[in-house]
Amino acid sequence: MTRAAVADLDGRLVSVGLDVGGTKIDAVAVASDGAVISRLRRPTGWGDDAVVSSIIDVVGELAVDGGFAPSNVGTVGVGIPGVVDSDTGRVLHAVNLGVESLDLADLVSARLAVPVRIENDVKAAALGAAVLRGISGSMAYLNLGTGVAAGIVIDGEIWRGARGTAGEVGHLSVDPNGRLCGCGQRGCIETFCGGGALARAWNRPGVLPVRDILDAAETGDELAVALRADLFHGGAAAVRALVLSADVERVIIGGGLTALGDRLRDGIRDSLREGAATSAFMRSLQLDERIELLPAGSPAAALGAAVVGTTTRSKETVSHG
Amino acid sequence: MTRAAVADLDGRLVSVGLDVGGTKIDAVAVASDGAVISRLRRPTGWGDDAVVSSIIDVVGELAVDGGFAPSNVGTVGVGIPGVVDSDTGRVLHAVNLGVESLDLADLVSARLAVPVRIENDVKAAALGAAVLRGISGSMAYLNLGTGVAAGIVIDGEIWRGARGTAGEVGHLSVDPNGRLCGCGQRGCIETFCGGGALARAWNRPGVLPVRDILDAAETGDELAVALRADLFHGGAAAVRALVLSADVERVIIGGGLTALGDRLRDGIRDSLREGAATSAFMRSLQLDERIELLPAGSPAAALGAAVVGTTTRSKETVSHG
Repeated sequence: MTRAAVADLDGRLVSVGLDVGGTKIDAVAVASDGAVISRLRRPTGWGDDAVVSSIIDVVGELAVDGGFAPSNVGTVGVGIPGVVDSDTGRVLHAVNLGVESLDLADLVSARLAVPVRIENDVKAAALGAAVLRGISGSMAYLNLGTGVAAGIVIDGEIWRGARGTAGEVGHLSVDPNGRLCGCGQRGCIETFCGGGALARAWNRPGVLPVRDILDAAETGDELAVALRADLFHGGAAAVRALVLSADVERVIIGGGLTALGDRLRDGIRDSLREGAATSAFMRSLQLDERIELLPAGSPAAALGAAVVGTTTRSKETVSHG
Repeated sequence: MTRAAVADLDGRLVSVGLDVGGTKIDAVAVASDGAVISRLRRPTGWGDDAVVSSIIDVVGELAVDGGFAPSNVGTVGVGIPGVVDSDTGRVLHAVNLGVESLDLADLVSARLAVPVRIENDVKAAALGAAVLRGISGSMAYLNLGTGVAAGIVIDGEIWRGARGTAGEVGHLSVDPNGRLCGCGQRGCIETFCGGGALARAWNRPGVLPVRDILDAAETGDELAVALRADLFHGGAAAVRALVLSADVERVIIGGGLTALGDRLRDGIRDSLREGAATSAFMRSLQLDERIELLPAGSPAAALGAAVVGTTTRSKETVSHG
């Protein structure tokens, strides 16, 4: 990508970060000064072996693209959906990848002969967003994609909570009469602003149904107007939940729905302002000023994975011999 | 109270903690080994001067009751409703006490000639509950009283969040069609399980309307049955919000409604189980096992204030001369 950066590489200086999604891997190679040397997107394999192979392959391709030797790769970090034990590097229940239980860190590390660390994709993206936006205090990364999840970063570190559910506001119910959620509850925030829930409620074909909803709402389509209101209401409810419970200073919105750009940001902001119009308490929180949207296609998740790769396992065992 | 404890006092060893409420002060004197030497409840004065005087008076009475000299008092901590700047010791908007802005720490410290620290009452109670229950990890203290608020304690320290609103789940809306809240929003958790909101909806005279509601519900009164369901639903919603957002390991319930005892605990627990019955995700959180109720009249708030008194202001200035 930038040959100038490549010339600076001296020894094992590249941190690789991979955001492994259900359909594609977003991969970055980062120099020690934080510069992105190369970035690639490749399809994700399905099932244990294919997931491992697609990770190995993309690391090799990053080296070719960035003009550095594979031996320059110092660490690899992987953000992946599912339940991740970041200490053991094991991934559980990554259903979108056909993975039930996989010792991903060990398998990749054995093939590449470098330290590999694994993190839940939203938590990794939260870390990447904090780095990208230069936030040193507390923040939440609110991922609006097919589902809704959030990760919290405080003072540059992922804040997991007691059992790893910190930031799981997607499954807070905010309407006892709301739509049934995939989780079994009714009226979860995810049923309002998750792309999957909105697409099911919209029930018409399209590449990005939420964009179709916004377009149709602008022409006055009744269902679309209602679903648009749900989207903005749900996003605002998630922001409120994150600030009232965990009191993060900022909420950075990322995920697939950021393809909607300003319409999404302005809609959530307006919904927050509407909610505050009748409430001095809510006004005092200035929530509308505490949110921002990542640009569509932001490398936050892959960058965060690269940062994860450079950290040490908290239960790292001492190597004998 | 216990003369044996008094005999151990050697120098300034007593930490005094005061939970200053809208009607009464709950006061404890604690020896250096954590033993409560004396405990008193006295009426709270109204307005700046009366609040300060009632605090000074109760400290003197604690000494008489505990059989120690006032000079044995080493520190004083005060938990008080309202907006508290714990660094400066200033209290703002303590409307239930007739206080708009008061340099409480400095005024009390000047009169007693000991260090005085001030904390928001719910945050102080959270600290006290953590100490009482011996919780060393993360916990939330959920105060169900006239209003609903929570404080979070992590590793023995009050966790304030970015702007001091961490744990303010009382004003999360969980029903867009719910009752109007005093804060101006609709369907806040406080409108479901706050004693004030329930008393207004019940609208019949009584010393503890929420107890009357539970009693009447047991005889089949329709309004009472509905309000009882709201109470338990609201308590469960608060627990869910605290665990899903901040992911505390335990939620300790305190406040005036603990006078309802097992009926309150079992009702909230059953509501959590009902919510989990349809949701494997919620079941995996085991929320019903993560709550407990403080006994009615628990000294948690006053004890927490005593602990607050022993801490150092984070912006303590060095004394010159």
